[in-house]
Amino acid sequence: MSKVGIIMGSKSDLPVMQDAIDILKQLNIETEVDIVSAHRTPNKMFDYGNNAHLRDISVIIAGAGGAAHLPGMIASLSPLPVIGVPVKSSNSIDGWDSVLSILQMPGGVPVATVALNGAKNAGILAAQILGSTNSQIRKRIIAFKEELKQKVHDSAKSLN
Amino acid sequence: MSKVGIIMGSKSDLPVMQDAIDILKQLNIETEVDIVSAHRTPNKMFDYGNNAHLRDISVIIAGAGGAAHLPGMIASLSPLPVIGVPVKSSNSIDGWDSVLSILQMPGGVPVATVALNGAKNAGILAAQILGSTNSQIRKRIIAFKEELKQKVHDSAKSLN
Amino acid sequence: MSKVGIIMGSKSDLPVMQDAIDILKQLNIETEVDIVSAHRTPNKMFDYGNNAHLRDISVIIAGAGGAAHLPGMIASLSPLPVIGVPVKSSNSIDGWDSVLSILQMPGGVPVATVALNGAKNAGILAAQILGSTNSQIRKRIIAFKEELKQKVHDSAKSLN
Amino acid sequence: MSKVGIIMGSKSDLPVMQDAIDILKQLNIETEVDIVSAHRTPNKMFDYGNNAHLRDISVIIAGAGGAAHLPGMIASLSPLPVIGVPVKSSNSIDGWDSVLSILQMPGGVPVATVALNGAKNAGILAAQILGSTNSQIRKRIIAFKEELKQKVHDSAKSLN
Amino acid sequence: MSKVGIIMGSKSDLPVMQDAIDILKQLNIETEVDIVSAHRTPNKMFDYGNNAHLRDISVIIAGAGGAAHLPGMIASLSPLPVIGVPVKSSNSIDGWDSVLSILQMPGGVPVATVALNGAKNAGILAAQILGSTNSQIRKRIIAFKEELKQKVHDSAKSLN
Amino acid sequence: MSKVGIIMGSKSDLPVMQDAIDILKQLNIETEVDIVSAHRTPNKMFDYGNNAHLRDISVIIAGAGGAAHLPGMIASLSPLPVIGVPVKSSNSIDGWDSVLSILQMPGGVPVATVALNGAKNAGILAAQILGSTNSQIRKRIIAFKEELKQKVHDSAKSLN
Amino acid sequence: MSKVGIIMGSKSDLPVMQDAIDILKQLNIETEVDIVSAHRTPNKMFDYGNNAHLRDISVIIAGAGGAAHLPGMIASLSPLPVIGVPVKSSNSIDGWDSVLSILQMPGGVPVATVALNGAKNAGILAAQILGSTNSQIRKRIIAFKEELKQKVHDSAKSLN
Amino acid sequence: MSKVGIIMGSKSDLPVMQDAIDILKQLNIETEVDIVSAHRTPNKMFDYGNNAHLRDISVIIAGAGGAAHLPGMIASLSPLPVIGVPVKSSNSIDGWDSVLSILQMPGGVPVATVALNGAKNAGILAAQILGSTNSQIRKRIIAFKEELKQKVHDSAKSLN
Repeated sequence: MSKVGIIMGSKSDLPVMQDAIDILKQLNIETEVDIVSAHRTPNKMFDYGNNAHLRDISVIIAGAGGAAHLPGMIASLSPLPVIGVPVKSSNSIDGWDSVLSILQMPGGVPVATVALNGAKNAGILAAQILGSTNSQIRKRIIAFKEELKQKVHDSAKSLN
Repeated sequence: MSKVGIIMGSKSDLPVMQDAIDILKQLNIETEVDIVSAHRTPNKMFDYGNNAHLRDISVIIAGAGGAAHLPGMIASLSPLPVIGVPVKSSNSIDGWDSVLSILQMPGGVPVATVALNGAKNAGILAAQILGSTNSQIRKRIIAFKEELKQKVHDSAKSLN
Repeated sequence: MSKVGIIMGSKSDLPVMQDAIDILKQLNIETEVDIVSAHRTPNKMFDYGNNAHLRDISVIIAGAGGAAHLPGMIASLSPLPVIGVPVKSSNSIDGWDSVLSILQMPGGVPVATVALNGAKNAGILAAQILGSTNSQIRKRIIAFKEELKQKVHDSAKSLN
Repeated sequence: MSKVGIIMGSKSDLPVMQDAIDILKQLNIETEVDIVSAHRTPNKMFDYGNNAHLRDISVIIAGAGGAAHLPGMIASLSPLPVIGVPVKSSNSIDGWDSVLSILQMPGGVPVATVALNGAKNAGILAAQILGSTNSQIRKRIIAFKEELKQKVHDSAKSLN
Repeated sequence: MSKVGIIMGSKSDLPVMQDAIDILKQLNIETEVDIVSAHRTPNKMFDYGNNAHLRDISVIIAGAGGAAHLPGMIASLSPLPVIGVPVKSSNSIDGWDSVLSILQMPGGVPVATVALNGAKNAGILAAQILGSTNSQIRKRIIAFKEELKQKVHDSAKSLN
Repeated sequence: MSKVGIIMGSKSDLPVMQDAIDILKQLNIETEVDIVSAHRTPNKMFDYGNNAHLRDISVIIAGAGGAAHLPGMIASLSPLPVIGVPVKSSNSIDGWDSVLSILQMPGGVPVATVALNGAKNAGILAAQILGSTNSQIRKRIIAFKEELKQKVHDSAKSLN
Repeated sequence: MSKVGIIMGSKSDLPVMQDAIDILKQLNIETEVDIVSAHRTPNKMFDYGNNAHLRDISVIIAGAGGAAHLPGMIASLSPLPVIGVPVKSSNSIDGWDSVLSILQMPGGVPVATVALNGAKNAGILAAQILGSTNSQIRKRIIAFKEELKQKVHDSAKSLN
Repeated sequence: MSKVGIIMGSKSDLPVMQDAIDILKQLNIETEVDIVSAHRTPNKMFDYGNNAHLRDISVIIAGAGGAAHLPGMIASLSPLPVIGVPVKSSNSIDGWDSVLSILQMPGGVPVATVALNGAKNAGILAAQILGSTNSQIRKRIIAFKEELKQKVHDSAKSLN
């Protein structure tokens, strides 16, 4: 069955990226997690981008901060859909660099960008992508959305 | 077969959104195009978001500008993956409002955001999503990437 | 008598939105408080927006953060004046996303936007709106402004 | 009957502010238009702010650009609801100064801010404010929203 | 002899504005300190702006935060040079609102703006203004600059 | 009698800086205009900054764009009040670099910054500085403000 | 002798990057120009980055716009000093994305970033780098600076 | 042998700039450290800029914050390559002023700018510059890059 590949530029991105791992586990989707740095391990990144689709990976989630080149470079190398998570790392200018260097890809090479530190949404989006042609996974998405709704209704009740 | 639903908040977004229509046609993927305004036709938007997955739509591309709520509201209503195109409309502050009101979705409801006016990339991303579990479409993506590469090599040659 | 409806996208917005509740209580204006999420409870939001004016609500205050769609969607659905409070939530980029996604509404669908985290001013503005055709409430506004002035005079005296 | 007072800092703001005048005329609401500069005619501004509510004005719309102090100062002086229109004037830094100097009012003195150059929305908001306690005006708002919707439906049809 | 008038919009601005008071005391220039709020005490502000030059005040320093209208309104009312100090108050968006609403004055009404929270420089600038036609004060400025230089030389020495 | 020194980093700044020259001529204040580049003629800049106060110059206006170091460096070298004009030059990022590199001077070395391209206001401020201890010049300032007011009244009349 | 390698992400960057070619020609330094796209020709980029220092290239200038990954990826692959030129391309948000995605490199992998569209300065910097250990080239730099100075003096004279 | 000159505007910049000193020590390259303030010790700065290349300095690293003029002024005075480190000092607006006033130098006078607080990268860049014509230093750079890679591989292993 299809897996989601989750990579990040540095182990310091793990506290943010863990949200993607957790939500995909909750949605019962297999993940494979690795650290791949565009700037410090370019060869590993090349191998990853060139080969991920030849293994059983269907969607890639890539998180990075500052001048964040990992998501875009993986999108350059792989035919798979790549989800980019801008991480507000310690060397970032309020997150703007992370967001813009992931979002503003040139025509031909998209990165599906989510909110700053939005790794949970990256996981959900990966599930939605798998669910776009898989009715079982889609059902889990629909159930998950139902839960979200229920939590708001509960918190609204607790207000009174 | 799966279709890509393409919607936009106003007919004035069409010159930007046409790029998504064109690239999907080029990649031989069926599209369905409509104008759906979050703010002026909220009922139509509700119907669209609630029902798209019950028809043969697998991915939705939504483009809007300014305080751009269409992509996020469709993502709220539909279990499908939603790709958001921030449009630099005439009432936008240099595009920042379009980008931020599409990108910065709360946990639970992702929008796969592409670059400002990046409708072409939205189309390619939609194809990659369909291709993540369809080897025929993936082959077209790989061929498309090959073409991109060839064009750069040609323009490099023309330099000398 | 007329009520002010106060809604927010998440219970985590309550510490900010409480300022609106408090000032309206101080101005002796009835409020009705609820949690309504554009992205997690779209149906509840639709009902709220469609029906508020059919109950005894005359003005709506809506607070939300990040890609904040609640105020604009309520303004889309309701004929009432809608006051938007951009909340600097934890997932916001310094508040810019909250401000721009509430303020930059397209022509036809205004949101009366107040300052970032400006829930107190949202409450005062709601009172001014009710007071625009109600001389009793206007008198309370004038008295409130007098108090503001007096506090500055007192603090100026304390300086010496 | 109630009037809407429309003021602007300079005659050069008129092309933007005309949208407010036009939409209020269309909604059959009386307006009174004047040029009042916070920085060049402070005495006139003081008189205006202190007296508008003593005449038959119920809502004030104030437009200005750059370091735009007119809406906030009028809100300081008047108990009426004040709608601020940030104008992207020639001396503005992409409109950011206009927006921030109108929006970010301190606690106690709200300005109902609309989008950059959003004078049309200022007019609609003024009508909604009057309509919050006037069922005739509210009916016109509802009809206006119906028209907006119809135009989108028509343009959607023209797409095919 | 000439005095420098120092005013601020709120007592909460005093910790920042104290730097102006201190440096002017150190430069042996008389000051007069008051709290004047553009938005809460508009009449006091009008009196201040209209009369400061009729008393023995030669330069005005005005500090405020958020939508900071005090410096610009005083500049509107007074023929004296007005120095504006943008204060990064708690309700400010990272200081940008304070800076832009003081700096971006329209043609005809300048405010001499200093750095965010730069009250010390406002004091020095006031002294330089008085010193532009007073050789005694200028000598103190030159001596002050000499001290600044000496401190850097000392800290450079301490490095080794 | 006292003169105002007007310098700019490049002849391409002259169309902006001419406004300062013109308004000072109109206010009957002598000026001396020169091109002094911080980055291309550092020695000339040093001489200018060290000597201006030894000639008959009482206030310096310095305009520059991009990484605009001229106003701050002159303020470093001269005991005179220095007014900085951020110029939106062709190599500027929307003027933000010009504004921030002039405004954000460190403690000890103020630059009296005016609005982006605000050379007219720089001229008026220079006159106000001279007028702070010269009643004749102050009278001209008061007359100038009267003219500004009259023009607004005239344009308000023309509205009807 | 040492060469400067000049690469750019797209032929559309050539009008900007030509300034680097021209100034290096003027300074009598050999260049080698190519088009290398991080996102469309990743293999060519890898070869370039891995091999440039094995040929006779001593400094690399890389220009790109939007999510500009070329300079940073070349810096990842090559031990040579890499100068990055942020290009304000048509798909850029006012140049901010170009600047931040080149400048904000993580610790370990520097890019020597110059101003937006600052290709001329990239050329001069490359010459200064070669000149840091080559007295002949340094002499040309000193002569070039002398010319810059002379032009300012000439334009200052023409002012009178 | 060649030295790297490291200067900073204030001793408070030392905690940031120490990273440059440390990495150069690690790479076995001699440094000379000093405090030179553009605004408080302009004469020392002039001497430094005019003479550094006459001593045994081959590259200059200059760090400063706020309106950061030191790197650009040194680049104006010296024919050597100048690396600028924007420091996020306490008086900075989130670092934007530091970045823009160093990066956006006019044509003719480049500063090789690194990331905000990126002093470590400034040190590496200085080594790369020396290594561009020195094979021994280049070998150290290549070994350093190898170490960076190895650390990522180790942290990737520790993940499992």
